[in-house]
Amino acid sequence: QLEKLRNRFNYVASSCKDIRDRYDEQEDGLYYLTTANGMVYQTFCDMTTAGGGWTLVASIHESSISGRCTVGDRWSSQQGNDANRPDGDGNWSNRNTFGTAEGTTSDDYKNPGYYDISAKDMSVWHVPNNFPLEHWNLASILRYHTSNRFLSLYGGNLFELFQQYPVRYNIGSCSNRGPAIPIVYDFGDEESTRQFYGPKPRRESEPGFITFRPINYERAAMAICSGLKPTGCNSEHYCIGGGGYFHPEQCGDFPSFDWDTLGNEQDWSASKEMSEAAVLLFYRQKNKLHI
Amino acid sequence: QLEKLRNRFNYVASSCKDIRDRYDEQEDGLYYLTTANGMVYQTFCDMTTAGGGWTLVASIHESSISGRCTVGDRWSSQQGNDANRPDGDGNWSNRNTFGTAEGTTSDDYKNPGYYDISAKDMSVWHVPNNFPLEHWNLASILRYHTSNRFLSLYGGNLFELFQQYPVRYNIGSCSNRGPAIPIVYDFGDEESTRQFYGPKPRRESEPGFITFRPINYERAAMAICSGLKPTGCNSEHYCIGGGGYFHPEQCGDFPSFDWDTLGNEQDWSASKEMSEAAVLLFYRQKNKLHI
Amino acid sequence: QLEKLRNRFNYVASSCKDIRDRYDEQEDGLYYLTTANGMVYQTFCDMTTAGGGWTLVASIHESSISGRCTVGDRWSSQQGNDANRPDGDGNWSNRNTFGTAEGTTSDDYKNPGYYDISAKDMSVWHVPNNFPLEHWNLASILRYHTSNRFLSLYGGNLFELFQQYPVRYNIGSCSNRGPAIPIVYDFGDEESTRQFYGPKPRRESEPGFITFRPINYERAAMAICSGLKPTGCNSEHYCIGGGGYFHPEQCGDFPSFDWDTLGNEQDWSASKEMSEAAVLLFYRQKNKLHI
Ligand SMILES: [Ca+2]
Ligand SMILES: [Ca+2]
Ligand SMILES: [Ca+2]
Ligand SMILES: [Ca+2]
Ligand SMILES: [Ca+2]
Ligand SMILES: [Ca+2]
Ligand SMILES: [Ca+2]
Ligand SMILES: [Ca+2]
Ligand SMILES: [Ca+2]
Repeated sequence: QLEKLRNRFNYVASSCKDIRDRYDEQEDGLYYLTTANGMVYQTFCDMTTAGGGWTLVASIHESSISGRCTVGDRWSSQQGNDANRPDGDGNWSNRNTFGTAEGTTSDDYKNPGYYDISAKDMSVWHVPNNFPLEHWNLASILRYHTSNRFLSLYGGNLFELFQQYPVRYNIGSCSNRGPAIPIVYDFGDEESTRQFYGPKPRRESEPGFITFRPINYERAAMAICSGLKPTGCNSEHYCIGGGGYFHPEQCGDFPSFDWDTLGNEQDWSASKEMSEAAVLLFYRQKNKLHI
Repeated sequence: QLEKLRNRFNYVASSCKDIRDRYDEQEDGLYYLTTANGMVYQTFCDMTTAGGGWTLVASIHESSISGRCTVGDRWSSQQGNDANRPDGDGNWSNRNTFGTAEGTTSDDYKNPGYYDISAKDMSVWHVPNNFPLEHWNLASILRYHTSNRFLSLYGGNLFELFQQYPVRYNIGSCSNRGPAIPIVYDFGDEESTRQFYGPKPRRESEPGFITFRPINYERAAMAICSGLKPTGCNSEHYCIGGGGYFHPEQCGDFPSFDWDTLGNEQDWSASKEMSEAAVLLFYRQKNKLHI
Repeated sequence: QLEKLRNRFNYVASSCKDIRDRYDEQEDGLYYLTTANGMVYQTFCDMTTAGGGWTLVASIHESSISGRCTVGDRWSSQQGNDANRPDGDGNWSNRNTFGTAEGTTSDDYKNPGYYDISAKDMSVWHVPNNFPLEHWNLASILRYHTSNRFLSLYGGNLFELFQQYPVRYNIGSCSNRGPAIPIVYDFGDEESTRQFYGPKPRRESEPGFITFRPINYERAAMAICSGLKPTGCNSEHYCIGGGGYFHPEQCGDFPSFDWDTLGNEQDWSASKEMSEAAVLLFYRQKNKLHI
């Protein structure tokens, strides 16, 4: 056990894929990684799903659904609704980091892997708030991954993708949304995805996709629609993250998941399960030759 | 010196008690610890008080007594007074972490030990703001510990204790407070404890205890009364931390220590010494067999 | 490469100068450092400028020029303009730390070196926001250092200097400013310095200096005038950081760089280049004997 822990600290690897391939590690858990510049950090590796090698790089956690772009809304704006600050806090496309792997279901998380790892696919886990690391996998209400290597087309990670599709107020209209990528379910399915959102979002979206940078009627930009492709323009009720300006009652990390009563799955409102689960983002690195 | 530093980084230990027992380290200072999941962090070990082996896991620091649940009030709420958010920021019972050991008297601190270590006793130091680590012990205005292994009854740490006694607005009334545990003084005594708080708190409390989850007349929950057992229901003037909703003029990490003039030890107001000292929390782990 | 990375983690050094002198490392990049108390951190070393050995200890980043002492204004106040909190967040003279080396152009940064290293000289880089570490040097719009060992006179670092010259509202008047130290340019010159600020600041300042703790007409204290010595009392338009109270429209990390239109280099307003660049602070340690 002791020896095992010591070993984990001695890898010099840039991603969980790297550790899996080079050291044949197959156990889920925390590992040390190193960026191209030599910055060291610890994060969680999913070594089992669909071949393993998935690196946790971020989580989007809503700490106050009634707090509209207040403290804790790091994936939209902590400065209130402000049209003069169209990018909000800008964390989708900068190198700021925050949080820790073990705390990732208790508050927002972003590690250097978010901008450093060159990946081809993503996976997403929706984990109920405050669940401990050792139960994330089983506790997840939804888990899926992409398999078409779409990130290769967009620079290798979300940092690069969102340079091409800025999460910025007034950058375009509803028809200018970013890519919608088909997903493979690891837990849950299209029907359960639909049920996690409200009755009205079900009528303006299609399950089985992850979609980037949707824009709504009011020209507010969001970052990710998890599990869905929008077919309408009220994405603030089922997509997460965002720029710095929304309709006054909608700004936040889960911008307007509570429009018709919090956690009530009524009209536009998402289910309680979805509203109180952190969204964990994983990358899987491109294969590379061994050093 | 060099060799000594290198050694410190090579322990794989879960608490300061662990390091003291297994490696016979007896020097106060910073050490590396590792959680059950393998998360690594540095913190301060008190290796001398009452047999040593005390791990610093948290500090409660009031950065703006006039700021009522504003930025920096991590142990109550950074979102303002909000009855719709009864748990406030929730840090007493989640796995979010913040701050650093060396910075612990300059701002709030919470490390993974807070939820990871399985402890039996606690100690508390009140250290004047901005004091450097090497002088914390001597600079403390009050230091004490428990000795009856009470934490074993409440799950082994404060994370677990506060699952049983949530720090939440409107969870109960004044008569529903959590346990009051007798303390052994390491610096100071019952009389000095009394003098650190205002004249009116002296009349509704008994020194010689640490008390958890008091509730006041307005049904606001606090986390800890350091050195005191309340015998009345105005605990907001002498207990710290809290949920997300208080009387409008009382929300904060030191909720209403300044009710009758800041730092003036007048009526309900605490002394300047107490109001401008961070509250450091230590755990001492259960004995365990050596690996 | 692997071996090289591993080596970097095995130094026990207190500053970049230490690493350069003792291990003859000459490459710019991230290294591990250790404080006197044993706290370990990673930061960027400039190993080339004027003999090398410069340790990055802090950056001042303005994340919302329209946000007047709001979230992110860690070098002034995140609590709004408040005369009852004259020191603001107090980070110029405490041991609080935040941010990471790789994220230093995306948000504020302060590491333990800020208070731990005993230095004699400083250098300053103005790096456009969001630039990656590997391009900071070339991307800088202004780089300079001091060469007269002035820090030796003020306690060895900014933490100590600002104990002597508190960054505090109402501590004195315009005539009570701290030292103005001559600088040596590494990129840019006196004329380019002048052009980065607005036309009116050019008339009340002299380029070729770094100045500490200026005070303006309204008795607001700032921390640093980068590249300039004020000859008038409107320093809020060209000096950075500050205490907790300013004119209501001027509080913030770049307090009033946008007085006459943001980034427009008009009247009192600074240029867009200056307003959107993080200010990186480096120390160079005194020479010491090898252990
Ligand atoms: Ca929110
Ligand atoms: Ca959040
Ligand atoms: Ca809508
Ligand atoms: Ca407060
Ligand atoms: Ca606090
Ligand atoms: Ca009362
Ligand atoms: Ca600002
Ligand atoms: Ca800032
Ligand atoms: Ca002025």
